[in-house]
Amino acid sequence: MWVVVTTDHPKGPNDYLPFKPPYQLQRSEGPCPFCPGQEAMTPQETFSMRGPDGRWSIRVIPNKFPIFHIEGEFDRRGEGMYDVMEAIGAHEIVIETPDHEQNVAFMEPVQIQKILQAYRERMLDLTQDRRLEQFLIIKNYPGLFNRHPHSHIMAIPVIPRRIDEEIWGILDYAERKERCIFCDIIKEEISDRRRVIVETTHFLIFAPFASRYPFETWIVPKAHCSDFHLIQEEEIVDLSLALPTLFHKFYRLLSDPPYSLVVHTSPVQARFHRQEYHWHIETRLRIGLREGFEWGTGFFVNPTPPEDAAAYLRQIGSSEFGV
Amino acid sequence: MWVVVTTDHPKGPNDYLPFKPPYQLQRSEGPCPFCPGQEAMTPQETFSMRGPDGRWSIRVIPNKFPIFHIEGEFDRRGEGMYDVMEAIGAHEIVIETPDHEQNVAFMEPVQIQKILQAYRERMLDLTQDRRLEQFLIIKNYPGLFNRHPHSHIMAIPVIPRRIDEEIWGILDYAERKERCIFCDIIKEEISDRRRVIVETTHFLIFAPFASRYPFETWIVPKAHCSDFHLIQEEEIVDLSLALPTLFHKFYRLLSDPPYSLVVHTSPVQARFHRQEYHWHIETRLRIGLREGFEWGTGFFVNPTPPEDAAAYLRQIGSSEFGV
Repeated sequence: MWVVVTTDHPKGPNDYLPFKPPYQLQRSEGPCPFCPGQEAMTPQETFSMRGPDGRWSIRVIPNKFPIFHIEGEFDRRGEGMYDVMEAIGAHEIVIETPDHEQNVAFMEPVQIQKILQAYRERMLDLTQDRRLEQFLIIKNYPGLFNRHPHSHIMAIPVIPRRIDEEIWGILDYAERKERCIFCDIIKEEISDRRRVIVETTHFLIFAPFASRYPFETWIVPKAHCSDFHLIQEEEIVDLSLALPTLFHKFYRLLSDPPYSLVVHTSPVQARFHRQEYHWHIETRLRIGLREGFEWGTGFFVNPTPPEDAAAYLRQIGSSEFGV
Repeated sequence: MWVVVTTDHPKGPNDYLPFKPPYQLQRSEGPCPFCPGQEAMTPQETFSMRGPDGRWSIRVIPNKFPIFHIEGEFDRRGEGMYDVMEAIGAHEIVIETPDHEQNVAFMEPVQIQKILQAYRERMLDLTQDRRLEQFLIIKNYPGLFNRHPHSHIMAIPVIPRRIDEEIWGILDYAERKERCIFCDIIKEEISDRRRVIVETTHFLIFAPFASRYPFETWIVPKAHCSDFHLIQEEEIVDLSLALPTLFHKFYRLLSDPPYSLVVHTSPVQARFHRQEYHWHIETRLRIGLREGFEWGTGFFVNPTPPEDAAAYLRQIGSSEFGV
């Protein structure tokens, strides 16, 4: 297991005080550095979509305080009895909308399409750097340091344990059954129905059998595909309806809960790329009460069975834009 | 990876609302079921220490809402394409003091000794059940559902991944170097000093090299010993001074932060017991800001280097009872 210790902006005890429980996220009033007109406060953008008037509707920038750095040597060295390694990688921010107060649960599908397209474009570009093996797309809602809607694209030279374990699970299943475990799960869940939250033409949204967290939800493309950045345009359109539907349900069911979303996709470079992988999105609400147990024991305690979670979420209506 | 889904008291969405951010722990006024005079509200105690007047100073009870149950069959079965297993195990609560508003950071060492002795006694007793392989002692401060000071003793028939990985790391190191990695770390840290927070006769308290969390702290006995329940009386006395010292430092440095503490100890039954294991305590402050990343990526992002954390904590004075 590798641990990234960021030493660029080391934080002292006072940095944590604003976040000590009760966790109080400051409601920052715009304009923030992500707002239109403040572009000079951010690094040079790597991607944007603009209207005829030159105004951007979506914008991608390198993170000013990256967890990973693109410069440096990717090698291990000793420090006393310990091994250390530079945190090499790309870390970009997708500014999802010009609107500081927007919420994905109420966002128009056409804007969600742009977000998904931005993810795809940046991945396609960054895969050119052969050092970058694993892509991680992560959204925290609300943002931890800025509530202006944004998400993170990270690309790193190592395969994180969580993805690695998934790959081994997939390969093990494929060897025994000559089938994809995700494709089998989709069939099983569609036939069983109890854990299904939303089914669309191209995606299944369901509460996984062994949900680690209350209201944990997976969004899986029905067609087998190892890589998120190979997503088809019709899948993007479909997903742009499905995602706000789900988040609108969360919003109404649990009074605007904080959540995290992560895109799982195969390692991209030929050496580790796995055709057998099945890309998908996992979401977790940050409403857990048992973090002490999870951390102390390495197992998860979930007091809400996935069948209950799915039933609650099915009953909630969709937004005006939803499926 | 196994997931425990508790179905006895499944929680609906409204159960989470009181805990939605800003996380507001209700300041429950006593008397609560853990307070003196309320003993009839709890299950029959499994251990207590009482004065000549019959009043208890510490009390252990089975958890009324256990994560694990002592009854049932410990076997795996299929459910559709999934495997399931009953959550067999013991789950007891150590009521650490009669005083509802007490805080370990200000507790007298003699009371901490009783807590440590209670852990040891319950472990010695529960190891008689040969199904129980792994003990976990966990304290969340403040308690998630009751702020009356208490901790959890859990004993389960499987070895959690976190402990299993530690064991393999220890065995791998032992095979290559014929030494205990924890004993080597203790030597290295004492000689280096930068990450040491407190050193006592029998224990080293330090910020581990690869701290996963800001202000993560390990408390390791200097003498090699695989099992917490083999702790010596003089070590208990020493630890009863060291623990409040550390928690007093946390209290003053970070304004009474919430924390979790877990005791790591070898699996107990002969089949999996490991003489090579080195029992220790890990503590984590629940002040993390990056939970979305940790969850999404499987790696940890810690913005406070352990050398900084240790330096901050060293500078803070001790309580009147501390070392």
